[in-house]
Amino acid sequence: MTSPLRDEAGWIRLLSATWHRKDAEVGLGDDGCVIPPARYTLSTDVLVEGVDFRRDWAPPEALGYKAMAANLSDLAAMGAIPRFFLMTLGFPRGYPEAFVEGVLRGLHALSDRRGVELCGGDLTRAPGGLFVSLTVIGEQRRRPLLRSGGRPGDVLYVSGSLGGPAEALRRFEAGARLEAFDPLAGPADPERALLDRFYRPQDQIPLGLFLADTGAASCCMDVSDGLARDLSRICEASACGAELQAGALPVDPLLSRLGEEERFQKALEGGEEQVLLFAVPPEREQALGGFGVELYRVGRLTEGEERVLVMRDGRREPIGDAGYDHFAP
Amino acid sequence: MTSPLRDEAGWIRLLSATWHRKDAEVGLGDDGCVIPPARYTLSTDVLVEGVDFRRDWAPPEALGYKAMAANLSDLAAMGAIPRFFLMTLGFPRGYPEAFVEGVLRGLHALSDRRGVELCGGDLTRAPGGLFVSLTVIGEQRRRPLLRSGGRPGDVLYVSGSLGGPAEALRRFEAGARLEAFDPLAGPADPERALLDRFYRPQDQIPLGLFLADTGAASCCMDVSDGLARDLSRICEASACGAELQAGALPVDPLLSRLGEEERFQKALEGGEEQVLLFAVPPEREQALGGFGVELYRVGRLTEGEERVLVMRDGRREPIGDAGYDHFAP
Repeated sequence: MTSPLRDEAGWIRLLSATWHRKDAEVGLGDDGCVIPPARYTLSTDVLVEGVDFRRDWAPPEALGYKAMAANLSDLAAMGAIPRFFLMTLGFPRGYPEAFVEGVLRGLHALSDRRGVELCGGDLTRAPGGLFVSLTVIGEQRRRPLLRSGGRPGDVLYVSGSLGGPAEALRRFEAGARLEAFDPLAGPADPERALLDRFYRPQDQIPLGLFLADTGAASCCMDVSDGLARDLSRICEASACGAELQAGALPVDPLLSRLGEEERFQKALEGGEEQVLLFAVPPEREQALGGFGVELYRVGRLTEGEERVLVMRDGRREPIGDAGYDHFAP
Repeated sequence: MTSPLRDEAGWIRLLSATWHRKDAEVGLGDDGCVIPPARYTLSTDVLVEGVDFRRDWAPPEALGYKAMAANLSDLAAMGAIPRFFLMTLGFPRGYPEAFVEGVLRGLHALSDRRGVELCGGDLTRAPGGLFVSLTVIGEQRRRPLLRSGGRPGDVLYVSGSLGGPAEALRRFEAGARLEAFDPLAGPADPERALLDRFYRPQDQIPLGLFLADTGAASCCMDVSDGLARDLSRICEASACGAELQAGALPVDPLLSRLGEEERFQKALEGGEEQVLLFAVPPEREQALGGFGVELYRVGRLTEGEERVLVMRDGRREPIGDAGYDHFAP
């Protein structure tokens, strides 16, 4: 692939031409951006080549889409309205520019749909490969949804299926490839849909805003390091234990060919789900009906610290906090 | 160096124990941070190992200090009060933890002095080496200082000496090493001071706030890619030309051993100065006296697009926009 060797000014021109929104008081092109007065929620998340993805797994549009979606998922978990983002992009000398341009197209497809404006960033060389670091800024009109605040007896929900991204990751590592990615529509074929799911987390923003507006949830977070590990964080922040019903876990139907044990393991320990995990006091559960999209009742918060998985036959198995840790030995 | 192999939770504990401020409504430990309602200015800047620094050039405290200082410099150039920051930190498996801890100490020394709170971030593996990406958030109480707004006739100022960091970089690349770095005080020895200057940009926050408060400056930016290139940005944004007086340029006295041509070249094209470049209409110049710290009158904005350097003997040499470009071919 030959590269026209775009210089820094050339990349900035491309970025300015791609992102048109002008909600920021001062946007791209100054030493900083100025955003209108409001209460803001910020979150940041980076994808690194060779760690979070490999370049040959999927088209670059998929990667850009995922980078934006993963960041928006954190705003969703707080109940914030996405407004702005900053992007730091690094890649080695001689890196294929067409790949970077594809990443930007995928990013833009989703940021445009959600009305999120690029207002700043940084460009650099990075000898180790591409990295895309986003900081997203959401407006927090309601009380933020936090990990703390859950009480024993609150009912635990997840907002989407579990285990798909972990199984997709395993397949990518075994040689599977996603040949095409359309930011507007996922593939119908189940095998490709599973790989596609890795790059296309469901949009949780509407649910986050619904939970913040109704005040239904006592605590909330997005599942990004696996249900078991993220549940342990909710439990720690809320000073509770938890009981999950194995039969109630929405294991991704695309995993149906796997054995039961492996399916539960993927559902509990798989990462990058980007679904919301939240708790609702029983007396507020009926408010959830207004959301109109299926939510999965998977268990409840309990007294104490213990976290257990109740199997279909009644056996109770302790849940550890295994899951994804970038820094695990 | 043996590493105790801190896991992700271990790093987060270290970060939480280091940064104590609690101005954020929701700080570390949730999916996002929530900052109090205000008008905010944001900026982001990343340092990458092998691109912006090498690990053996200086103690890690120097690098952390520089990372924070470079980001604060952008807020200074906008006239914002630093309040919060997010930090994304990536490094390879097996990277010496003591080095990362030193970077955090240097970062904390400066953020603590300026009252800036760590409210979020991300941790990741990065196969190519250490990178430190900060997003800083400042409160914008006054009208922001922009690159646009300069008018022909406005007097150009820089707020500190030029060329030192470029010469320090040359020496590091030729084998020089900075053996020690004290975040509280620079070295007295001139040779070490020159190397130290690379990591210790002057604090421009008081000047940025002064300029925003008094409304004295018509335009402003921080010099980070060299005076020539950054002047071209001011000129483009303000639709002006410029005339610099060679004899007025505050070339770093530590460069006195170099020949005149090389000194001017370093002063014009050297990067990472992190001093402010700003223009002041003549009728507002006397307001600058209130700042009480020396500022350097280096030229003026002119009609047209031409940018020239007027030599001591009256010769007029065109100024290009040579300077630092990460993506130069």
